[in-house]
Amino acid sequence: MKKISFNRPFLTGKEKQYLEKAVANGMISGNGEYTKMCHSKLVEMTGCKKALLTTSCTDALEMAAILIDINPGDEVIIPSFTFVSTANAFILRGAKVVFVDSRTDHPGMDESAVEALVTEKTKAIVCVHYAGVACDMQVIMEIAKRRNLFVVEDAAQAIDSYYTWPDGRKQALGSIGNMGTLSFHETKNIQCGEGGALLINDEQFCKRAEIIWEKGTNRAAFWRGEIDKYGWVDIGSSFLPSELSAAFLFAQLEQSEEIQRERIRIWDSYDNALAPLIDKGMITKPHIPAYATNNAHMYYLVCKTPEERASLISYLKERDIHAVFHYLSLHSSPYFHKQHDGRKLVMSDSFSDRLVRLPLHMHMSEEDVDHVIATIIKFYS
Amino acid sequence: MKKISFNRPFLTGKEKQYLEKAVANGMISGNGEYTKMCHSKLVEMTGCKKALLTTSCTDALEMAAILIDINPGDEVIIPSFTFVSTANAFILRGAKVVFVDSRTDHPGMDESAVEALVTEKTKAIVCVHYAGVACDMQVIMEIAKRRNLFVVEDAAQAIDSYYTWPDGRKQALGSIGNMGTLSFHETKNIQCGEGGALLINDEQFCKRAEIIWEKGTNRAAFWRGEIDKYGWVDIGSSFLPSELSAAFLFAQLEQSEEIQRERIRIWDSYDNALAPLIDKGMITKPHIPAYATNNAHMYYLVCKTPEERASLISYLKERDIHAVFHYLSLHSSPYFHKQHDGRKLVMSDSFSDRLVRLPLHMHMSEEDVDHVIATIIKFYS
Repeated sequence: MKKISFNRPFLTGKEKQYLEKAVANGMISGNGEYTKMCHSKLVEMTGCKKALLTTSCTDALEMAAILIDINPGDEVIIPSFTFVSTANAFILRGAKVVFVDSRTDHPGMDESAVEALVTEKTKAIVCVHYAGVACDMQVIMEIAKRRNLFVVEDAAQAIDSYYTWPDGRKQALGSIGNMGTLSFHETKNIQCGEGGALLINDEQFCKRAEIIWEKGTNRAAFWRGEIDKYGWVDIGSSFLPSELSAAFLFAQLEQSEEIQRERIRIWDSYDNALAPLIDKGMITKPHIPAYATNNAHMYYLVCKTPEERASLISYLKERDIHAVFHYLSLHSSPYFHKQHDGRKLVMSDSFSDRLVRLPLHMHMSEEDVDHVIATIIKFYS
Repeated sequence: MKKISFNRPFLTGKEKQYLEKAVANGMISGNGEYTKMCHSKLVEMTGCKKALLTTSCTDALEMAAILIDINPGDEVIIPSFTFVSTANAFILRGAKVVFVDSRTDHPGMDESAVEALVTEKTKAIVCVHYAGVACDMQVIMEIAKRRNLFVVEDAAQAIDSYYTWPDGRKQALGSIGNMGTLSFHETKNIQCGEGGALLINDEQFCKRAEIIWEKGTNRAAFWRGEIDKYGWVDIGSSFLPSELSAAFLFAQLEQSEEIQRERIRIWDSYDNALAPLIDKGMITKPHIPAYATNNAHMYYLVCKTPEERASLISYLKERDIHAVFHYLSLHSSPYFHKQHDGRKLVMSDSFSDRLVRLPLHMHMSEEDVDHVIATIIKFYS
C-alpha cells in the first residue's frame, strides 16, 4: 500500500487559471476583484451581513477582539481545547482569558459550565465549533443576551456547517454571534494556504470593521468615492490578504459543494465501517448533536487511555498511515498554566490525551479509506 | 499620449512559474520551500542575522513591538510624516507615541530633535527611511546606546538602500537597528501584492521571533526535530504568509539587480532633466545626504505652496499623468490630534502640504519619462 498522509491539500483545477488572471490584472494587492468576489460568495454561503477576507483566522479573531473593544482587565470565556490563536487574539488586547472545559460527549465547550464563569468583568464568550460541529448556540446566545456579553464564534473548522434552532431554522456557523471567523489554512475543507475571514452579523460593527481592516484608515470609503482623501481614524492592522490568496480561494469556494460531497462520503465510510467497534464500546466516535450538521472536516476517535492512543498511532504509522492527536489543553500549557485559576478541566485534558484524528482528504481513494479502516479493526482485534 | 499611471506593478516573468511550482508542491501554507529561499536571500542581501517573511510590513512592525516588549505607558518616538502602521503597531501594544518632526532638507525624521523627546518611559526610536533614503543612523544609534533604547528601522521603502558610516563601511537599511522591517506591497520596488519581512539584527530576539511568528508556539523547533511536540509558549500571531506570496516574491528578489538598475535609470532621467527648474529654485528635489544611497523608490518634488502643488497635480492629471501627494502628518490626524502634546511639527506639515510624487515604475518607457518631464517644465514656464 502507498503511504496515506493525514492531510493533502486539494486543488479544484481552477486555482492556476485564477492566479494567472489576478497576475494579468496587474493589481495583486488586497481588496481587488477576487477579494470582492470572495466577500460576495461568503455572504451568500453564510448569510452574514458583511464578510472580510483576512490573512488568517488568527487575524480575523484579532479583528473581532478590536471591534468589541477588549481592554486590559476584560474577561473572555474560551474553551481550553482549542488552537492557541483563539486565546492569543484576545490576550494581545489585554484580556484575561477564563478557560472552560469540554463537554463529556464532545470536545466542544461545555455550554452548561459557561454561566458560572461570568463575572462583572466578562465581555465576551468565544465559542469554538470543534471539528465543524456546532456548539449549542441557543444556550450560548441566551446567556450572552441575559448577561450582556458579545459572542464571537471561532468557526475555523466550520465552513458549510449549521446550527438548527428548535423551530427548525438553520443558520450557518459563524453567522449567529456578533461575529464569526473562518479559516482557509491548507488543513481546512476550503483553503488557500494561509487565509481566513471575519463574518460580521451585527450591523454596529460593519463600518468600523472596514477601517480596522485597512490599517485604521478610511481608505475603503475613499475608493468608493465617499470621501476625497483618506486618513488615520482608528487603530488597525493590515488584515487584508493579497489578490493571489483571494484568487486561489475563489476557485475553492466555487467548488465547495463538490468538495463537501466527497468529504462527507469519506466521513460516512469511516463511520459505517467502524460502527461495530464503536457499538462494542471499544472506541468512541464523533458525536453530532441533533442541532448540529456534519461538514466532514474531521473524523476522530477517542481511545480509552493515552497509552492505547499512542499504540494505535504507532501501529498505523508502521503501516504508513498518518493519524495524529490534536490540541493540548491551553489552561495547562507552558504559557498559561501559572495564570490559570486552578480549576480542573477534566474533559479538555481527557480529549487532549485520548483523541486521534484519522486521515481525511480529497486525494483518498476508496481503497485508501478501506485500508485505514481495516488497519484500525485489525489493531482492535 | 497614453495614460501614465503613478504605479504599475512589474513582473519579472518567473512569478507564474514559481506559483505553479508552489501549487504543484502540494504545500502552500507558510514556512515552506519558497519562504525559506526568501529568508536566505534576504539575509544575503541585507546582512541581517535572521529574516522572517510576514503578511505585511505592518505585521513585521507588530512583531517588533511584541519583541521589544512594549507595554502600556511605554513611549516610542516616531516621525509624524509616515504611514499609519508605523504608529499603529506600537499603539496596539499600548505604547504612547511621541511624534518627531521631519528634517528641513528631507521628509525623514529630524534626528537632532529626537533626544529632547526621550524620557524615562521611552523604550524605542522607530526611524523611517522615507523614500528609501537613510536616516542619519550614527546619530540615532548613538542616542539609543547612551539612553538605552531599542531602534526599529521602518525600511518599508528601503530595500537595496544603504547607510555609509564615517569609516566608509556600508550597511543595508533595516540591518542596523535591533530590528528592521521591509514592505513588499505592490507599490514597492520588489513586491508580492501584500507582504513584508522582519529583519533581526540582535541575537537576543532571534529565537523568540520565530515563536511569535508561529502564533506563540514552538512549532518551528518541532519541525526541525528539536522537540517532540509543540505547544503554547508565548503570545503571538499568524505572521507568516503563504507559499503563494513567497513564491511570487522569490521571483522578484532574484531579479532585484535588474529592477534596481532600471528604476535608477528613470530616477536619474527625472533628476537630470528637472535640474534647471531646481537650479532656478522653482521646485525642490529629493535630497540624498552623503551618508545615504538612492534605491530609486520614489522621485518627488516639493512645491512652494499647497496651491501650487494642487495646480501641478491637476495640470498633470488633465494630461493623463497621475502624480500624487503622500502622507498626512499623523500628529494632526483625526485619530491622534487630541492625544498630541501640541508641539508644532512644521516640516512634517509642510511636506504633507507640498510634496508630490511622480510616476516611477518599470513599465515607463523613455518617452513616458520624457513626457512627464516636458509637461512639468511646461507647467513651470
